Amino acid sequence: MEYPSKLIEDAVNQIAKLPGIGKKTALRLVLHLIKDKSENTYALTDALVKLRGNIKFCSSCHNISDHDVCSICLSQRRDRSVICVVEDSKDVMAIENTAQFVGLYHVLGGVISPMNGIGPSELKIDSLVTRISAAQNEVKEIILALSPTMEGDTTAFYINRRIKDFTVKVSVIARGVPVGGDLEYADEITLGRSIAGRTLFQ
Amino acid sequence: MEYPSKLIEDAVNQIAKLPGIGKKTALRLVLHLIKDKSENTYALTDALVKLRGNIKFCSSCHNISDHDVCSICLSQRRDRSVICVVEDSKDVMAIENTAQFVGLYHVLGGVISPMNGIGPSELKIDSLVTRISAAQNEVKEIILALSPTMEGDTTAFYINRRIKDFTVKVSVIARGVPVGGDLEYADEITLGRSIAGRTLFQ
Repeated sequence: MEYPSKLIEDAVNQIAKLPGIGKKTALRLVLHLIKDKSENTYALTDALVKLRGNIKFCSSCHNISDHDVCSICLSQRRDRSVICVVEDSKDVMAIENTAQFVGLYHVLGGVISPMNGIGPSELKIDSLVTRISAAQNEVKEIILALSPTMEGDTTAFYINRRIKDFTVKVSVIARGVPVGGDLEYADEITLGRSIAGRTLFQ
Repeated sequence: MEYPSKLIEDAVNQIAKLPGIGKKTALRLVLHLIKDKSENTYALTDALVKLRGNIKFCSSCHNISDHDVCSICLSQRRDRSVICVVEDSKDVMAIENTAQFVGLYHVLGGVISPMNGIGPSELKIDSLVTRISAAQNEVKEIILALSPTMEGDTTAFYINRRIKDFTVKVSVIARGVPVGGDLEYADEITLGRSIAGRTLFQ
């Protein structure tokens, strides 16, 4: 498509670099910004510049944070004996939303994926080992809450091997049929796992 | 949802103001920007700031332009006897893509819509009348290429009344079954119009 202005073209190309946004959507957004009040565009760009310039990560759990140590790691009301290991900050938000977990987190920043050139050293696994080793008497359980994919399983396997000498319990989140889902639509591996991992009816 | 950082929250809220983007998508984009190289975020915000600060509109046809008069209005290869009236710049791009039209454009900036508080004075209709009046011997035809909606029809009706004293032909783009579409899926109004507006088989 030919654009009536170089400015439009540049803006469209930049927006279309974002994941899940194509050129058509980008053009729609650009034309919206032009029609809208200019303050709104500046408020948007301002928020993004501040975000990218000032975002910090917790020095303990590596979650996104406004301070050097995040509010979860600082909180006195969290159970310091359990650490839940997740892929990224999105997972922390999702688990926090369940209100089912009161322990601490450890954000790896991804999973082991040789296809994408991500090995253990690209992730915060050493930091996890150091963290457990430094608080060996305090930490009782590590929950591995990684994606139920090949990469997630590989990462869980690797982490388990790295921390097997510590006296901590290592658990993984349950895999089974999703709540509210229909049995006939569950794939056979999930269904198989849900049978193998059955729990006592209470 | 609770965000781990005020910066994240602000950025998500700003992005979610864009049309068609909800908070979940906004969060996905924000987390992408944080993971991505910071240059990419700055390239994006830079393009948007430049866009909003420097965008110009053609003083003749009101299309988006890098200069005071757009390249279409300036071009010597365009047929100056036909003016195609459209709602916005997106339509100009769409019609240019068809390569079926070599005349000039006039961008109204919307259609008459009392529901949204848009009357004729909010649109570039006076400017269209002035333009035709100033070049009465040159302009032979006005093509109304507005959306086939109530608002589009109202606008077409209004423009037609405003310019009926000039000796220009006023036409509207054909309405009928879309090319490649299946007859049985066309709604009855469209199908009715396509029969009423039938043309000779050639």
